Amino acid sequence: MSDLTGQPFYFEDYFVGQEQRSVPYTVGKEEIIEFALKWDPQPFHIDEEVAAKSFFGGLTCCSAHIFSIFCAISQKWECGAIQQPLASLGFDQMRMLKPLYVNDSVVVVTTAEEVRRSRSNPAAGIVKSRCQMYNQRGEEVFRINAAFLMQCRHPSAS
Amino acid sequence: MSDLTGQPFYFEDYFVGQEQRSVPYTVGKEEIIEFALKWDPQPFHIDEEVAAKSFFGGLTCCSAHIFSIFCAISQKWECGAIQQPLASLGFDQMRMLKPLYVNDSVVVVTTAEEVRRSRSNPAAGIVKSRCQMYNQRGEEVFRINAAFLMQCRHPSAS
Repeated sequence: MSDLTGQPFYFEDYFVGQEQRSVPYTVGKEEIIEFALKWDPQPFHIDEEVAAKSFFGGLTCCSAHIFSIFCAISQKWECGAIQQPLASLGFDQMRMLKPLYVNDSVVVVTTAEEVRRSRSNPAAGIVKSRCQMYNQRGEEVFRINAAFLMQCRHPSAS
Repeated sequence: MSDLTGQPFYFEDYFVGQEQRSVPYTVGKEEIIEFALKWDPQPFHIDEEVAAKSFFGGLTCCSAHIFSIFCAISQKWECGAIQQPLASLGFDQMRMLKPLYVNDSVVVVTTAEEVRRSRSNPAAGIVKSRCQMYNQRGEEVFRINAAFLMQCRHPSAS
């Protein structure tokens, strides 16, 4: 997950409606338990027997784990290009639509919805995107809106 | 972080305006790097020298790390009571207001803003809260709105 090298994708490369697909990511059982033990130790995230009898019928990723997977793979595009974020401007409407179970494999599809130069920073632009995570059955499991300050290839003249 | 035992705090125990303060959490340098290497390997989250020359002037937690810290400590209340969540209904208006640096110590203050019985599930209620994270200087560093389905002590009669 630590390899973020590739063709840089600058603010100027975005346009409204642009779609990017991430590399896939498969969730392991040990990873679900290890993550939840540290960050969200609810019994149904860390104990297989409790989870089997719970509402979801099996171990599922906690919300922080799903968001972390989203953060990781939404930066690793299938096309190989690498975004140049300067800062996160926030996230909205985060929804866990379906549980993520052991061995589920997910991808993130990101669609740019707003693309504009920053008024205060001539070297940056703002990109707002709708991000959707799908599992191996094509079911939408997670959704979030993201806003980022992106680096420009060429700072604006003004 | 895995100790979630204490007096259970059920849906009936919430009221609008109720405030809960979390235990504190101090962020370690190795933790920042380890978390980001796995989930958000931007150079300014994993390399001290790069971070020192970056906009923030030092290593800072990535967004997924901040959200994970929030998830962990927002369940560990100073008063010792333990919430009984059944499911997350989503998060809104997540804002990283200030960076979290090495050795920063944070707490989460949660204020209930909406408390109502579930219409579809007689054993559950919905609690919507405003959650704010403060550092050791009292500066608000992170904010998020959370909605949870909480277990009732006594299922409603209807």
